[in-house]
Amino acid sequence: MIGVFDSGIGGLTVFREIARRYPTLDVLYLGDTARVPYGTKSPDTVTRYSFEAAHFLGRRGIELLVVACNTASALALDALAHALPIPVIGVVVAGARRAAAVTTNRRIGVVGTPATIRSGAYAKAIHDIDAAIAVTSAACPLLVPLAEEGWTENSVARETARIYLAPLARQGIDTLVLGCTHYPILKKTIAEEMGPAVTLVDSAEPVADEVADRLRALGRDPARGSGTRHFFVTDSSERFEEVGARFLGHPIERLELVDIVGE
Amino acid sequence: MIGVFDSGIGGLTVFREIARRYPTLDVLYLGDTARVPYGTKSPDTVTRYSFEAAHFLGRRGIELLVVACNTASALALDALAHALPIPVIGVVVAGARRAAAVTTNRRIGVVGTPATIRSGAYAKAIHDIDAAIAVTSAACPLLVPLAEEGWTENSVARETARIYLAPLARQGIDTLVLGCTHYPILKKTIAEEMGPAVTLVDSAEPVADEVADRLRALGRDPARGSGTRHFFVTDSSERFEEVGARFLGHPIERLELVDIVGE
Repeated sequence: MIGVFDSGIGGLTVFREIARRYPTLDVLYLGDTARVPYGTKSPDTVTRYSFEAAHFLGRRGIELLVVACNTASALALDALAHALPIPVIGVVVAGARRAAAVTTNRRIGVVGTPATIRSGAYAKAIHDIDAAIAVTSAACPLLVPLAEEGWTENSVARETARIYLAPLARQGIDTLVLGCTHYPILKKTIAEEMGPAVTLVDSAEPVADEVADRLRALGRDPARGSGTRHFFVTDSSERFEEVGARFLGHPIERLELVDIVGE
Repeated sequence: MIGVFDSGIGGLTVFREIARRYPTLDVLYLGDTARVPYGTKSPDTVTRYSFEAAHFLGRRGIELLVVACNTASALALDALAHALPIPVIGVVVAGARRAAAVTTNRRIGVVGTPATIRSGAYAKAIHDIDAAIAVTSAACPLLVPLAEEGWTENSVARETARIYLAPLARQGIDTLVLGCTHYPILKKTIAEEMGPAVTLVDSAEPVADEVADRLRALGRDPARGSGTRHFFVTDSSERFEEVGARFLGHPIERLELVDIVGE
């Protein structure tokens, strides 16, 4: 059994990819919806919240943790990986690896929340692979609320994408990392703004690859299990059900409201 | 000494008005920035957070509490007023009274966060004053992130205002309540969209009136005191300092990071 943790709803884009490939894998999903968003909060606060989430899932017996939140991956992954007795996979390194493999002109753009971009985690992860790659980053704080509002292809979404992305487009990048799990929801609008010469990288695919590799290394077969899907949220489930169903493309079953701080 | 509580930065528009009128009044301000925003969260969670904030300020000896957050005022004010031994003033009733006094055609519009609008608190407060007033409400979830991003008068702000406000403008209202303390930051754009025939109501002024009245009823003079101004935040102060200085028009002094849950 594995755990997938996000600050809220966005990590469902990662969950969706894992579930699509390994339909019988047992997965617990925790969305810390009472404290979302993490992207505008400080490193200390994001780290504290991430440990509370990891311990909550740890007590339920997960063998591997996916941190499906870019902000938490950028700010807390090293601390989590060091402290926890199980493998911890983050979306930042997975996305960085994929982007470095995809680029041909060695110019990569990264978009994410203010906290993720300020951390410099993507630039660092990309430069650990190839120090010669030029990385240009941009914080796009309004894209998360736009995705949650469902304004993904209207005039406001297009104009917002234009303001945030035009400086990146001028850098001549050929690859753009969607460094926030909400952003794949806006993929079409972002792709139109960047044009056909730019490949968009979504971390969900490389994360699913890495989950399978790490499970096999533990002697587990990701293609086996009973297909348990259990969702936990820290704030009332109504909004998570509504927006989550839109993200997943089907209704969410087995959804439970929990208190991860007081437990 | 009085306490002003908000989920984050928006309540500074209320603090600003109180401080402008009563420069020597002692005021503590608490922004629950680690858990902002409240506007997309459930009634139970907002009520729990509001009590933690009220108790934090209560332990510091405040004699009156201003709930300068529309969501908390809409969802938790009755419970707070019932449980606390001091007067509690919310922005919803103050704004509703002002709007009812201002309207001449008895058609009032209300804009706010999804939680505030879903609660129906403004419509109820206005109908308690005059049941014949027609109230039309609209949730505007993107206005808070726009105000925080500082996009208050650009093309995205104008287009967003147009989409949210056009249905209200068609109702023939003559008064619009800015039912979220962030919205006065977008006043110019909102006023342009609504046109000169619509009066915008910001709760800060009537709240400041009520603070003075209630203090006098306690035998206190709001014009006396030593002018103490102490700000508490639950997440790191950097962002609060930056955005707060923009809201107040001057730098924020005496800012302290606190843990209101663990205290």
